Amino acid sequence: MVRVGLLGCGNVGGALVQLIADRGHEIEARTGVRLELAKVAVRSIARKRPVHIDEELLTHDAAEVVSDPGVDVVVEVIGGVEPARELILTALAAGKPVVTANKELLANHGAELFEAASAGGVDLLFEAAVAGGIPIVRPLRESLVGEEIRRVIGIVNGTTNFILTQMTEHGTSYAEALAEAQQLGYAERDPAADVEGFDAGAKAAILGSLAFGAKVVAGDVYHEGISNVSTTDIDFAKRLGYVIKLLAITELVEVPDGPAEVAVRVHPTMVPVSHPLAGVRDSFNAVFVEGAAVGDLMFYGRGAGGDPTGSAVLGDLIDAATNLRKGTHAEVISLVRRPIRPIDDLLTSYYVNLDVVDRPGVLRAIAEVFERHGVSIRSMEQEDTDDGARLILITHEAREASVQATLGDLRELDVILNITSVLRVVGSD
Amino acid sequence: MVRVGLLGCGNVGGALVQLIADRGHEIEARTGVRLELAKVAVRSIARKRPVHIDEELLTHDAAEVVSDPGVDVVVEVIGGVEPARELILTALAAGKPVVTANKELLANHGAELFEAASAGGVDLLFEAAVAGGIPIVRPLRESLVGEEIRRVIGIVNGTTNFILTQMTEHGTSYAEALAEAQQLGYAERDPAADVEGFDAGAKAAILGSLAFGAKVVAGDVYHEGISNVSTTDIDFAKRLGYVIKLLAITELVEVPDGPAEVAVRVHPTMVPVSHPLAGVRDSFNAVFVEGAAVGDLMFYGRGAGGDPTGSAVLGDLIDAATNLRKGTHAEVISLVRRPIRPIDDLLTSYYVNLDVVDRPGVLRAIAEVFERHGVSIRSMEQEDTDDGARLILITHEAREASVQATLGDLRELDVILNITSVLRVVGSD
Repeated sequence: MVRVGLLGCGNVGGALVQLIADRGHEIEARTGVRLELAKVAVRSIARKRPVHIDEELLTHDAAEVVSDPGVDVVVEVIGGVEPARELILTALAAGKPVVTANKELLANHGAELFEAASAGGVDLLFEAAVAGGIPIVRPLRESLVGEEIRRVIGIVNGTTNFILTQMTEHGTSYAEALAEAQQLGYAERDPAADVEGFDAGAKAAILGSLAFGAKVVAGDVYHEGISNVSTTDIDFAKRLGYVIKLLAITELVEVPDGPAEVAVRVHPTMVPVSHPLAGVRDSFNAVFVEGAAVGDLMFYGRGAGGDPTGSAVLGDLIDAATNLRKGTHAEVISLVRRPIRPIDDLLTSYYVNLDVVDRPGVLRAIAEVFERHGVSIRSMEQEDTDDGARLILITHEAREASVQATLGDLRELDVILNITSVLRVVGSD
Repeated sequence: MVRVGLLGCGNVGGALVQLIADRGHEIEARTGVRLELAKVAVRSIARKRPVHIDEELLTHDAAEVVSDPGVDVVVEVIGGVEPARELILTALAAGKPVVTANKELLANHGAELFEAASAGGVDLLFEAAVAGGIPIVRPLRESLVGEEIRRVIGIVNGTTNFILTQMTEHGTSYAEALAEAQQLGYAERDPAADVEGFDAGAKAAILGSLAFGAKVVAGDVYHEGISNVSTTDIDFAKRLGYVIKLLAITELVEVPDGPAEVAVRVHPTMVPVSHPLAGVRDSFNAVFVEGAAVGDLMFYGRGAGGDPTGSAVLGDLIDAATNLRKGTHAEVISLVRRPIRPIDDLLTSYYVNLDVVDRPGVLRAIAEVFERHGVSIRSMEQEDTDDGARLILITHEAREASVQATLGDLRELDVILNITSVLRVVGSD
């Protein structure tokens, strides 16, 4: 029997309690471990909950749950940095395994927590912190530990993926799609954490840490959100055989005469319709992993929601409990310091859509700007419009800074009426 | 240091040797385990290999590798039932962990091997046996051990998926696409194991065992291959918004007043284009898992090839090696006996395409046949053809035996000129 101390009993905590109640016998039959809920820290004891919990298990005092000698394993689902960090460090120092779903904490203090787990000789498991119910943390930590991972690309925010799917499939405007997401409970009243890419950025930092064994924190992540993506962008993307997705991208970049650098960023991106990530619709998440030997992998599923996230927590909890019984723990994560590659130095392919005046020499003038900055054009389409012409360009991979300088110079060019849209392109090389 | 005895050094074995050579230092830095190749059993010692192996490590005698006290872990990549089974049982009995990629062996003798591993108190790991490089065995064994899995649907044979993709995207005939697959080395000279669904059937049996903790063997799997799939089928599927995939499907079916039954089958299937499995192209594999709490998951990647499969073997090998060092092992798999549901009792939705004479009363006569067998029609389209009319029907889920009886009676109906195609439909409910 393993006694579980639960910190927080909202959506995810409630789902976990229900799953333990429903699946406890089956889990015991399969693994020999009986999970027993020993103590639950909640904000309000009186509050009605959709799941039944013995009132005597409830307490306001999270620290009491952690220090209770009747608690063998701690599950933290309160979220946020403090007091979660303090509570988890206390549990680990006391030799109690911890399961957490806390992306914000891991993305800011992962290295400290991993070291504490290592020092305590116990498990710190966090499958639910990235992409909810999708098993991605365990495959990266275990199955792929010997693999040379080159790049990880994730659709790791369900809210923005829902909004972009609505815009793509129903022609909805950004504002309408956001309102719909809010109505369905996918987006918060203040949607900034989702739509500006902060949430995806935290997950990108965790993915980068796991994939490259490197210290990557939320502050290292360059991010742009989707609030500037227009239906015009989406329509042109579609015409060219792309869809627009908010991607979290982290890769290891070899540097001549120096240590490899970790690049990590979040931005709206054009993805070819034939790419597996293009088919990830609605609020689903997916993590695409590019390995040297294993090739391309993708892990797809529900990135949020009480039940899927609760299921991921439960998987970790069973693992922590069986390890505890056997007196062992998962391989510890030790992170090395690697330089973070500045966004300016990243190589990206760009899509650029320009309204221009229709007269001889325009194309030459534009091509000259690209050439001056060493940005090579991969494809170009020109078409007439009512008041001039439209140029649709896709570049080869070029340094971000060079593309930005090119765009700056293009803005100065009097033959250009409007830069309609500019988007990065991934996955079509 | 963990000394590895390798049985077989073909594509996968060679890739593993290369990966250990290339990645050994990194693996040691990350996990503290140094993998050393101690002995390699091969058919021909003289044969040139693309990878360098010290000649003194090579032997003809696989039994010698297993019994060598200088071998700590055994990797079996010779394939086939014997002598692999005997060798693995010997290794497990001697307390040596085993990593294998042998689907045929596991699909026929899995329960015996799992018991031997349990008795020996050592690991038997087999990530590479299902869907090559895709981490699916570990997620099912560990991440999802607490989850109530309802159904697993896999595209687990790359050869047939390549053939169907060629037919779908380029209008190639089955024979041409098969010839192309053979030319590219995807299909064998005798393609029966792939195209008739035997290979997928073995993997379906392993997936069923893992998902439901039940004894499922290759002989339990009902299978139909793709050799009868025509470009006509594919064109109609496309028109209706479907693609045709060879699916391995296993599910747990509740039975009133009896134990739940395991259904397990392989057949060509119409999948809605919006379903994530529809986007799995070329020789890629994917496994789609439907869980009660976690919802829908999909695991996508390379299902075959030396490097991807070698990568999966390497992941297991590192796991076995670290477990050995810690004196522990993965949770053992214990399988219970569950009834296998007869194919006749399966519930499936069907697509039926009929050429009929164009005269009053035809539709009524046909509808009467469906009604007689309790098969309910979900949608019907009628269109004129040169010599009559075409009816395209999709049924609600109905018992397989009832649909077969319906088709038998339809064949007798003189208003029916031709039953153009009949295909099962999955994923559109």
